Amino acid sequence: MDDWPQSRSATRAFRPSLRLATSFLANYPPGSDVRSAVEASGLLSAKEMEITALTSDATAILERIKGKELTAVEVVTAFGKRAAMGHQLLSCLTDFFFEEALVRAKDLDDYYERTGELVGPLHGQLIAVSMPAMLTSFSEGLPISIKDHMDVAGHKSGCGFSADTASTPASKHGSMAQVLYDAGAVFYCKTNLPQSVMHLETYSFWGQVVNPYNTKLTAGGSSGGCSALVAFGGSPLSIGSDIGGSLRSPAAACGLWTLKPTTLRVPRDAGSSPNPEDSIVESWGPICRSLRDIDRWFSVVIGSKPWLREHDLVPIPWQISTPTKWSGTEGRIRLGVMWHDGAVLPQPPIRRALKALVDELTKNSAFEVVEYVPFKHFEASELAHELYFVDGGAHIRAIAAGTGERILPLTEWVITRPTVKDHTIHELWDLNLRREALRAEYLEHYNSQNVDVVLCPVGPGPAPPLGTSKYWGYTSVWNFVDYPAAAFPTGLYADPLLDVKDTGVRTWMSDADEKISTGYEPMDFAGAPLCLQLVSRRFADETVVQGLYKIAKVLPLG
Amino acid sequence: MDDWPQSRSATRAFRPSLRLATSFLANYPPGSDVRSAVEASGLLSAKEMEITALTSDATAILERIKGKELTAVEVVTAFGKRAAMGHQLLSCLTDFFFEEALVRAKDLDDYYERTGELVGPLHGQLIAVSMPAMLTSFSEGLPISIKDHMDVAGHKSGCGFSADTASTPASKHGSMAQVLYDAGAVFYCKTNLPQSVMHLETYSFWGQVVNPYNTKLTAGGSSGGCSALVAFGGSPLSIGSDIGGSLRSPAAACGLWTLKPTTLRVPRDAGSSPNPEDSIVESWGPICRSLRDIDRWFSVVIGSKPWLREHDLVPIPWQISTPTKWSGTEGRIRLGVMWHDGAVLPQPPIRRALKALVDELTKNSAFEVVEYVPFKHFEASELAHELYFVDGGAHIRAIAAGTGERILPLTEWVITRPTVKDHTIHELWDLNLRREALRAEYLEHYNSQNVDVVLCPVGPGPAPPLGTSKYWGYTSVWNFVDYPAAAFPTGLYADPLLDVKDTGVRTWMSDADEKISTGYEPMDFAGAPLCLQLVSRRFADETVVQGLYKIAKVLPLG
Repeated sequence: MDDWPQSRSATRAFRPSLRLATSFLANYPPGSDVRSAVEASGLLSAKEMEITALTSDATAILERIKGKELTAVEVVTAFGKRAAMGHQLLSCLTDFFFEEALVRAKDLDDYYERTGELVGPLHGQLIAVSMPAMLTSFSEGLPISIKDHMDVAGHKSGCGFSADTASTPASKHGSMAQVLYDAGAVFYCKTNLPQSVMHLETYSFWGQVVNPYNTKLTAGGSSGGCSALVAFGGSPLSIGSDIGGSLRSPAAACGLWTLKPTTLRVPRDAGSSPNPEDSIVESWGPICRSLRDIDRWFSVVIGSKPWLREHDLVPIPWQISTPTKWSGTEGRIRLGVMWHDGAVLPQPPIRRALKALVDELTKNSAFEVVEYVPFKHFEASELAHELYFVDGGAHIRAIAAGTGERILPLTEWVITRPTVKDHTIHELWDLNLRREALRAEYLEHYNSQNVDVVLCPVGPGPAPPLGTSKYWGYTSVWNFVDYPAAAFPTGLYADPLLDVKDTGVRTWMSDADEKISTGYEPMDFAGAPLCLQLVSRRFADETVVQGLYKIAKVLPLG
Repeated sequence: MDDWPQSRSATRAFRPSLRLATSFLANYPPGSDVRSAVEASGLLSAKEMEITALTSDATAILERIKGKELTAVEVVTAFGKRAAMGHQLLSCLTDFFFEEALVRAKDLDDYYERTGELVGPLHGQLIAVSMPAMLTSFSEGLPISIKDHMDVAGHKSGCGFSADTASTPASKHGSMAQVLYDAGAVFYCKTNLPQSVMHLETYSFWGQVVNPYNTKLTAGGSSGGCSALVAFGGSPLSIGSDIGGSLRSPAAACGLWTLKPTTLRVPRDAGSSPNPEDSIVESWGPICRSLRDIDRWFSVVIGSKPWLREHDLVPIPWQISTPTKWSGTEGRIRLGVMWHDGAVLPQPPIRRALKALVDELTKNSAFEVVEYVPFKHFEASELAHELYFVDGGAHIRAIAAGTGERILPLTEWVITRPTVKDHTIHELWDLNLRREALRAEYLEHYNSQNVDVVLCPVGPGPAPPLGTSKYWGYTSVWNFVDYPAAAFPTGLYADPLLDVKDTGVRTWMSDADEKISTGYEPMDFAGAPLCLQLVSRRFADETVVQGLYKIAKVLPLG
């Protein structure tokens, strides 16, 4: 799947015991469901299988460490081994530093053994601001994987280019890694991301990430290394980033949970992406296995008061324990359903999942279900795309040209779309003014809909076949307006018998609509997880999570 | 002072009773203190003199309206008359719509008379969100003047260019005007601002604004129309904007109060300035006569929850009643004194005022006074300047060229500084990354200083002689890092006997330092008010106000 001789060299340094034989790998040709490969390999002990099982989540693991049922070393060993295997099947890593992680885990175990205290607040001495006691609950050796463009001390950072191999290792943790480290996290690997970071798939110099449910499908992107790894059981929680869907697309592709927060609530490393522009800002967040892990992660990160150390953050605490005043009758949640975005009709499996959940919620007395009418979503996502690449993609081409690296097909597509062109400063100003005007209009529209949350697809279909992810509208619109948006699994899966191809004739809403509808082949997606998206207004991140807690009561469906 | 034939045509439409005779104007040659001109004119009644007296403030006026001691019509009449006279002496207006204001004031009086209710919350019906009851305290006919680039329904907006005369009147109130209108404000005039808005003086197509204390001095800028008008008694409170010092410079020049808030806390009209760039963001705020008026204004504006209607605002309430946890011993305010910014030594009057206040605060048990060391202030202000004009000033030149308007000397200066050049998109990205890095470094430095607030000069001197305001560093550094910063009067005034020229030899910190020091002539500033600046960390606007309440206890000095 990749033809660079250097590819994956960094991550090939596995200990012999973690290497999968070529004959074993041959059991999983393209299109396989590889989730059972770890068990089949016999390389993990029964306890390691149990520690990493997807039925557990970060919270459960942490409670077991706290209860001395497990040590950090045991946990890190189990996830490390599983991650190493996952990479060989999924190309999900860019770097793997297992030995370093084991040393860190041992330190944490020793500290706990010696003092009887969990490590979080005391490691807080590394920074000026002391950590609140709450952090103890997210410490003690949770192995966290981190997307490659985020700085982790001692390791190279990159954006999926071969040029990254020549970069200098980070001299210190980035803002996000530091908060997590201070809370007791163990870093053991970095995850793959697409060449230039700007795709809803993940194909880079480090390989093409595939979906553990079906290796002919993408694991999504740009945080597809995170999602593939977590869905394979190689990480309980992974840190990704999202400027157009890059947390939600991969989480949805792999049946996982994520929340793209409002910008400026959690730390990120300035300038860690190839296009350091101010026009659309990136959000960092977790891809994980449960809603309570999302909640816990934001409690820890925002609870560390990162605005005292990061100049661009907004000092708003994580107010999850403040009940939202729902605006429906008798305190019901006014949930607006957006069946489609006015530009592309979702494919049959997504329509089925959305309808199934809406049917459940309509019966549920906690909800007042209404329709949410989309407003200029196509225009917003097109404008967002123009704002991502205001240099016409020249910077991305220059990085690739510097090492003679070829531009991958989706990179070429993303920087040659009609909206992408080199701009003068005045053209950029005009674009920014158009952005402000459309954001203002959008808020007026949102207010007119009178809903607490919006339930909608995460994309037009389940995880797309490799190389075909070309419609960002369902996710990028929420980056454009900077509204918090979560992706979550419904518990349903694509089923060729239920999700038959549309017959009948209808008017296409756009060219993309026609392509996505006529290109749908039920068999391509068999067994792919079906996820949905929940959104609320800017800075109402807690409302999204509180809404999800209510929705989760009817999950999994089917 | 200006040679455009069209100049001030809009504002000349005064009723005969408000026109000052040429012979009267001749009594006030350049260099005059014109503050007593209203009384000398005999055009205001004793009651009108008393309503507009500078010993009163907006809060006092509102209480008297509420107590039915005054009607809105009486108040608007008094301020309107005084504003009209002020303009003839100070060139402080761009538009004057007295008759319209009287109709509005009459409506408010009738409503109060009829219902016994103040109008604030009920006018709130105009917007989706109902106004909190608190707003009643800032309603009922307070005449508020508004800087010309802010939209007021039915009136033209502009940036000090002759081209503005051809613009279309605003079809609706801008965000800020709407909040104030809903709270019961009466609009009666718009205030002058410099050609292009980007100066710390105010000279435009509409005339050159002069300082009521001494008409050879500037009233500051870019909100110099606001400050001249308020200091003359023609407005109790005026709305200005600040991207490099434009609220603080004029307030300080005229002995008034202001707070430049952290960006994104109060509404502003996107694209209301000639350079609609995202790199340094503008803040809007009040120029007024008292600290309690600042507090009240922010309570009203932020209390209206503007983030529910304005997409870019941050949902942080005005938390003035939450006591700040001061970090000094026994809960004292750790106040850092910045004697100079490391680039330009303040002129003798400012040094005297700063020392006098520091001496008072050092004796005061509420304070723990320490030194605040400046950090790369010159670098930050130079970078800010480069970011203001990333098109090399081309847009400003194009607006002027469109009508054949001449570029005024300070406009020419501001767009031909060595930092100003046309940039490519990649150069802009590099600049933005340098900005992020310097902001991050600055926060680290700020944290290392361990202070609650910083006390420092507002500029290198008192109000500068007309045409000489060329050092922005004392104010623009706080826009660069986006820290809230207030200007306030010490009660001291420049005194040629006390503020003698420096003798002795010292090493210049910069070229600007040499120019400002050697150019200081004590007689130029005789009687000019001396103001200082109080600053705190980003989003700690309430900390600034709470600190000022403590400082105000020792004011006025002298």
